[in-house]
Amino acid sequence: MDILTSAHIIDWFKGLQDRICIGLEQLDGSAKFQQDLWDRPEGGGGRTRIIQGEGIEKGGVNFSAVQGEMPEVIAKGLGLAPNNFVATGVSIVLHPQHPLVPIIHMNVRYFETDQGDWWFGGGIDLTPHQVYPEDAQEFHQGLKQVCDSFDGKAYGEFKEWADNYFYIPHRQETRGIGGIFFDRLNESYGRSKLDIWRFVQAVGEAFVPLYSSIYRRRVSMDYTPADRNWQMIRRGRYVEFNLVYDRGTKFGLQTNGRIESILMSLPPVVHYEYNYQTTEDFEKQTQSLLKKGVDWVNYTIV
Amino acid sequence: MDILTSAHIIDWFKGLQDRICIGLEQLDGSAKFQQDLWDRPEGGGGRTRIIQGEGIEKGGVNFSAVQGEMPEVIAKGLGLAPNNFVATGVSIVLHPQHPLVPIIHMNVRYFETDQGDWWFGGGIDLTPHQVYPEDAQEFHQGLKQVCDSFDGKAYGEFKEWADNYFYIPHRQETRGIGGIFFDRLNESYGRSKLDIWRFVQAVGEAFVPLYSSIYRRRVSMDYTPADRNWQMIRRGRYVEFNLVYDRGTKFGLQTNGRIESILMSLPPVVHYEYNYQTTEDFEKQTQSLLKKGVDWVNYTIV
Repeated sequence: MDILTSAHIIDWFKGLQDRICIGLEQLDGSAKFQQDLWDRPEGGGGRTRIIQGEGIEKGGVNFSAVQGEMPEVIAKGLGLAPNNFVATGVSIVLHPQHPLVPIIHMNVRYFETDQGDWWFGGGIDLTPHQVYPEDAQEFHQGLKQVCDSFDGKAYGEFKEWADNYFYIPHRQETRGIGGIFFDRLNESYGRSKLDIWRFVQAVGEAFVPLYSSIYRRRVSMDYTPADRNWQMIRRGRYVEFNLVYDRGTKFGLQTNGRIESILMSLPPVVHYEYNYQTTEDFEKQTQSLLKKGVDWVNYTIV
Repeated sequence: MDILTSAHIIDWFKGLQDRICIGLEQLDGSAKFQQDLWDRPEGGGGRTRIIQGEGIEKGGVNFSAVQGEMPEVIAKGLGLAPNNFVATGVSIVLHPQHPLVPIIHMNVRYFETDQGDWWFGGGIDLTPHQVYPEDAQEFHQGLKQVCDSFDGKAYGEFKEWADNYFYIPHRQETRGIGGIFFDRLNESYGRSKLDIWRFVQAVGEAFVPLYSSIYRRRVSMDYTPADRNWQMIRRGRYVEFNLVYDRGTKFGLQTNGRIESILMSLPPVVHYEYNYQTTEDFEKQTQSLLKKGVDWVNYTIV
């Protein structure tokens, strides 16, 4: 008997959302999450939780579990026969107020159909407004540790996947310093469903400690108006990625998802300056590091 | 002998850009356009002109004329055989500082191939942060006049086309109060090339007077912080339309156009608030008027 039912996974994801929200409220220090419950007319729903604090200027930690008949166009896109499906997961985007604290994104998700298909997906990536190589290294070393406990080849593969996914072609730059990304992970990867589930759980649980460490290191540093202005410019690139390229966002908008839960990922305040040229050294350094293939785990910190 | 050559049209569009820039500098009252010349490696180039003033917070008036071999994927998308093409036009987006002054967009363009295909396209639409029915009516009456001089059925058709084009499906709202939109206009419309050209010229020349009248009526009015905040929210919707749906933007990003000229359409400062609810009456009224099919020409002003 399969004890790893979708009901069990849904339940665990709800608990993960609770734990992450508690962790982030402690990190912010003052604000509390506000919750909106929503129902999907065709089946299922979600718990959208938003924080607007002094530390986390705007952040969302969303849980959803939707089910029902799969629209034909989506089944086709996924290469699946007509089916009834369950999709559940937790999605997070945090925009800190402090320009030296990075933006972070995390998603873990599970999908199954009544035709026997199932897979896990997810990812976590960091978007510093200013790249501190020691933060990027710590972040990637942490992710490598999570991946290594699952499978020796996972970190290398999922890191490359993130480099390719979190990429802005028209800017020829990565969104940030990457992380890991994986999709349609199932037994064809050579690991049991339970092994994959343990890995997805470990990614979810790693979120708060990974982010808290970097957040606390940067949040007490002084910053200038130039730092804050650059943050507004970098946030603009985040919007460009999310609205033009992000598959999750596109999928949500095309399938009549809950708009406000999908677009919670957009930053609270953004500047779009025509032909902005990097002038400050920190801007140039950051720009030079927004590229694929940087070996952050073994990066030489100068 | 065809006197309406692409060289002639290109030349006229350049002059139109000049005249519009002069008109807008007078309207702004203080700022001047800055020009960036750019070349397209495969042939042609453009003159991007940007104004960042006290009246027009951020605006672009772009001229371009590009030519060369058409990429296969684009020819296919347009339903054309392999060809050499010329594409030229003027594109404008203005974001005023004053929240009671509307955003405006205009585009006029010409396209031809060495296989004998040619067409004109264009459009002009108004995006008020707050809808004043008398402004919307004046704007549409002005456009109707321009259209009527060309063809009796044009306004009705091009107005409906604009309603459908400048639409944000995931919000189920129009971008603004519409205007006119037309594409691939050629002899199959039942009018000569010269007639169509005169119409496109008239659209271009109508831009400054149409906008100036509304601009001057609103720019001296007092406004509140609530007006300005609502402007920041509405600008967010403008970004959603341009990055998610606008075909011109998509085309530019996919064909390796000059990014900064394409994205000059994005507002200078934007707010994305989670689940923003209209509270003020003026917000509710505006929201209620952002829909297709409003007969602005015959609208009853109360």
